[in-house]
Amino acid sequence: MWFQREIQLEPRARGFHLVTREVVEGVPEIADLSVGLAHLHILHTSASLTLNENASPDVRRDFESWFGAAVPEDAPYWTHTLEGPDDMPAHIKASLLGTSLTLPVREGKLALGTWQGLYLCEHRDSGGPRSLLVTVVGE
Amino acid sequence: MWFQREIQLEPRARGFHLVTREVVEGVPEIADLSVGLAHLHILHTSASLTLNENASPDVRRDFESWFGAAVPEDAPYWTHTLEGPDDMPAHIKASLLGTSLTLPVREGKLALGTWQGLYLCEHRDSGGPRSLLVTVVGE
Amino acid sequence: MWFQREIQLEPRARGFHLVTREVVEGVPEIADLSVGLAHLHILHTSASLTLNENASPDVRRDFESWFGAAVPEDAPYWTHTLEGPDDMPAHIKASLLGTSLTLPVREGKLALGTWQGLYLCEHRDSGGPRSLLVTVVGE
Repeated sequence: MWFQREIQLEPRARGFHLVTREVVEGVPEIADLSVGLAHLHILHTSASLTLNENASPDVRRDFESWFGAAVPEDAPYWTHTLEGPDDMPAHIKASLLGTSLTLPVREGKLALGTWQGLYLCEHRDSGGPRSLLVTVVGE
Repeated sequence: MWFQREIQLEPRARGFHLVTREVVEGVPEIADLSVGLAHLHILHTSASLTLNENASPDVRRDFESWFGAAVPEDAPYWTHTLEGPDDMPAHIKASLLGTSLTLPVREGKLALGTWQGLYLCEHRDSGGPRSLLVTVVGE
Repeated sequence: MWFQREIQLEPRARGFHLVTREVVEGVPEIADLSVGLAHLHILHTSASLTLNENASPDVRRDFESWFGAAVPEDAPYWTHTLEGPDDMPAHIKASLLGTSLTLPVREGKLALGTWQGLYLCEHRDSGGPRSLLVTVVGE
């Protein structure tokens, strides 16, 4: 059994945002599967997806701090600067974290670890709404 | 054909560990597939999975050196410090490398390159046993 | 419906290369699927795959600059140096970006965002030809 649906995620500030509930509610058909895989794909090049700690907001704030330090906006080697100082770092961060995730489905639910939550990683200052294409296969 | 199984990986020291054989032996059903995909998902937020060079232990040691330098424990911007100095860096490293891998299956085996091995990346000093959920689909 | 095929990518210089068209033309069977997943797996440990901006060559040049600065060839901690100064950094970069990608298929095409292109990331100075194993499932 296959299904596929595009979900719109509302605009968010630059940073790391917990969106597990929002995404899970967008694909209720997962409840019908005993086993499967859910593939989440963000249709952009300056935002990304990752799984990480779902309890402490300070973890998500520290993600922003580390990525800001590791991919500096004022590095002397940037040549793609026309779209603003946050643009090229956003592309690098998106590829470091990845624009898609494949997650296991077990007994009608995403089989995440106790502490795993889904992050939308918004790397632009004003990224706008983000489109997520969800593809699920299972039985 | 689908199957899914949780595998327990024994506690390992902080660092990068070759676990190809241990994981492959845990899913003997792969031998029955002519083509498919095997999805490996670690149910934690401070350990990760990657594929890399399977021959030289010094490659895995150098991985630990680079990640230790790139994500320093004593960075001034960490605010999530309650769980110890290795915790927040472990979260960042886990997202850089990723908590799941999808691998191709061909003629009854994982179709890895000659030099590709599966690494369990343990980012905590004392991470304990790690649970891996393996989901396989194929025909 | 499953199919699997190995594609040879011609040798390329160190850097980031847009290969969307080359890969898509190698798997024409995608046109027969209304929904599915395409898994691309590079069978090497010093080259990788990512999705990013498909229009400006300067983005790809800036990728090379950032990765060169972030994973320096002359770091004092490298111990795996027998295969040349570009070898160990290439392994790290390959794991940061990842050696496989899973992409959604929709209505006979890879469902990429408007600006998303497929990059072959060649991390060696002389990496030679690269083998890509493509596995597609769908209906």
